[in-house]
Amino acid sequence: MTYIDLFGYFGSFLTCITFMPQVYKTWQTKKAGDLSLTMMLIVVLSTIVWLVYGFALMLWPVIVANGIVFTLSLVLVYFKLTFK
Amino acid sequence: MTYIDLFGYFGSFLTCITFMPQVYKTWQTKKAGDLSLTMMLIVVLSTIVWLVYGFALMLWPVIVANGIVFTLSLVLVYFKLTFK
Repeated sequence: MTYIDLFGYFGSFLTCITFMPQVYKTWQTKKAGDLSLTMMLIVVLSTIVWLVYGFALMLWPVIVANGIVFTLSLVLVYFKLTFK
Repeated sequence: MTYIDLFGYFGSFLTCITFMPQVYKTWQTKKAGDLSLTMMLIVVLSTIVWLVYGFALMLWPVIVANGIVFTLSLVLVYFKLTFK
């Protein structure tokens, strides 16, 4: 593993956890009015596209990262539609 | 270019535009209270890491996508600190 690989793994890790603080905050406050539903729907769509790409080429880092972000973005869409 | 490559390009495109609706909405409403500052700072950090990775290996799709998302996330951090 090279020095540069470490940046790739660290970047993947950060990408995976990106939406966790937002899910936590929205769950705590029960307020999602300032969040863009369009943004979340783009995240849902983009992660589906990346999952197709990842499974087609069996790229596990792509599959794992986008599986996690896909799940978190679905939670945020649910919060957005529930909490208003 | 294969069929699968198209998914990769479409995924990259969607990733690039992810934060645009949020920047637009926050600019319009001047309200960012429900947005997680931690999320945005993770996006800033992760895109910096991905930019280092992209420049080290000269991966243009990684550089372009993360350059755009980095810029939009900086705008959102500014909005978050300004609009409250």
